[in-house]
Amino acid sequence: MNFVAALNEAAAKNLRTLEEQIRQAISEDPFIFAACEPLIRGGKRLRPMLFMLCANAKTACPPEKTMPLATALELIHTASLVHDDIIDTSKRRRGVETANSKYGAQIAVLIGDYLFAKAFQLVAENDYGAEVSSILSKLVKNLCVGEIMQDRSLFVVPTMTEYYTRINLKTAIFLSSCCKLGAVVAKAPSREVENLTAYGAGLGLAFQIIDDLLDFFGDETVTGKPHGGDLKSGVITLPVIRALEVSGDADKLKALVTRGEVTAEDIDAAIKIIRATDAVDYCRTRAEAHIEAARVNLPLTLKTSVSLALEQIADFVVDRTR
Amino acid sequence: MNFVAALNEAAAKNLRTLEEQIRQAISEDPFIFAACEPLIRGGKRLRPMLFMLCANAKTACPPEKTMPLATALELIHTASLVHDDIIDTSKRRRGVETANSKYGAQIAVLIGDYLFAKAFQLVAENDYGAEVSSILSKLVKNLCVGEIMQDRSLFVVPTMTEYYTRINLKTAIFLSSCCKLGAVVAKAPSREVENLTAYGAGLGLAFQIIDDLLDFFGDETVTGKPHGGDLKSGVITLPVIRALEVSGDADKLKALVTRGEVTAEDIDAAIKIIRATDAVDYCRTRAEAHIEAARVNLPLTLKTSVSLALEQIADFVVDRTR
Repeated sequence: MNFVAALNEAAAKNLRTLEEQIRQAISEDPFIFAACEPLIRGGKRLRPMLFMLCANAKTACPPEKTMPLATALELIHTASLVHDDIIDTSKRRRGVETANSKYGAQIAVLIGDYLFAKAFQLVAENDYGAEVSSILSKLVKNLCVGEIMQDRSLFVVPTMTEYYTRINLKTAIFLSSCCKLGAVVAKAPSREVENLTAYGAGLGLAFQIIDDLLDFFGDETVTGKPHGGDLKSGVITLPVIRALEVSGDADKLKALVTRGEVTAEDIDAAIKIIRATDAVDYCRTRAEAHIEAARVNLPLTLKTSVSLALEQIADFVVDRTR
Repeated sequence: MNFVAALNEAAAKNLRTLEEQIRQAISEDPFIFAACEPLIRGGKRLRPMLFMLCANAKTACPPEKTMPLATALELIHTASLVHDDIIDTSKRRRGVETANSKYGAQIAVLIGDYLFAKAFQLVAENDYGAEVSSILSKLVKNLCVGEIMQDRSLFVVPTMTEYYTRINLKTAIFLSSCCKLGAVVAKAPSREVENLTAYGAGLGLAFQIIDDLLDFFGDETVTGKPHGGDLKSGVITLPVIRALEVSGDADKLKALVTRGEVTAEDIDAAIKIIRATDAVDYCRTRAEAHIEAARVNLPLTLKTSVSLALEQIADFVVDRTR
């Protein structure tokens, strides 16, 4: 991940310590470890990194104050992916076989639950206090509400407002909460908490829009996923919503995406229709606008190294290929 | 539930308030409410009742100190049932269609996650402190480890030790944690915390053994479940383990329960073999021994009304028919 290059040495060391802590957090039970270790491997660690950077935004925050919560954030993210893979009946994630495919839905549900519980245990046992636990439980709740919203309207075209509500609940609140948690743990003044939260929110919206774009147009050898996975599972995202607004073939596209069954040919046809419109540019422009909103919210008072890393993360989010 | 008769008026009023609080806890989102309300309805409320009784064991604990956590315990229990029903692909629970059957596994996973998160939010936002959150997250973790243990050895005969480890993780730790939480919230001295925890642990072991017995020999019109559900899903419990030790038809029984597919005729045949042994008496005797251990741990210093209710719960656990 290219933003790691922007980290100063202390932050890079933190990242190495984090990897160890994550492994340790799942090592209580040999089966849980064997099942979770491949799932944990290879993540971008975007959420814990955002948290740690924001916790160190002005003065150094000791690792013992950041590590348990950083670990908890990655465990929650992993738990949500494990449960997501049950939902998507995906076979591979981050280049490895999913828990669902390897152990069946039964055990995958429980592995996810275990990771959630472990995350809350780490927070309970490291004196973060009620506000941190509250932010954390609310972000999980919102994530669920966003996912439920998505699953209840598969193969249905959402309005722009519905799409934004969903990606806000699913992704933006998670990333903004990571930033907020950093500021809260660092006892930042409320104005700075708000600004870092707003940075995370813009970042999150952009992140999800780019994710939705990569699902159609990413390099399959880089993303590790075949094109059109969202469409196949009935999730209709911004490129389609935009194309439906402007394409001469909108009726054909609508029929393809709402029929309830999507073949490889349908995906190719949908991509062709989308490409013939301004949808890709439109999505990029929207993502860039959210990133710009994120940037302008970055307080000017941050340490240079942190400020630089948060800027680079913003760049990464719109430029990323996976 | 017959132990409600043993509650004094204050506790009975608490139970009514609890029902309202549980409904309120799931009412933030209309879909979540519609999905969860039928699942929440009709539970015995054993876990929150144990907690509330232990919190009021010596002096009255104000409802605002007990209600949020009592609600959280029932939400966690419900979440685990929702996830359990995905696992069992059960169609009905507590007389109503399961979330899994009604909305599909996708949404059922998320509803369970939502309920877990809501429970942790209630605890975070009502000043219970780190110890309570820690006990709560550990009980969820243990529940998962117990269920995973079970799911990894379907159609395999466990040793007695394995059986007890599993029901301890799955059930006894949950019930003992409810009692412990009551004592902790009431700031009871550590000796009393230990004794009430031990009461809950004995109760939990007995509860699960009776549950496993009811699965074979309960009145289907009362339990609401067909006989042999555990066997059908590959879960081998104490009545079978005992029968395998003593039956002349042990080989036949073993073949039936380990083949990996269990028909209605197999269940009838297994029940016949089990009935011909002392397994039912054995299980009852074991359950009664655990209940006796629970009883002797009840501190003598409790309020009469609470003591009476906890004794009645112990009676209920071994006498219950559903």
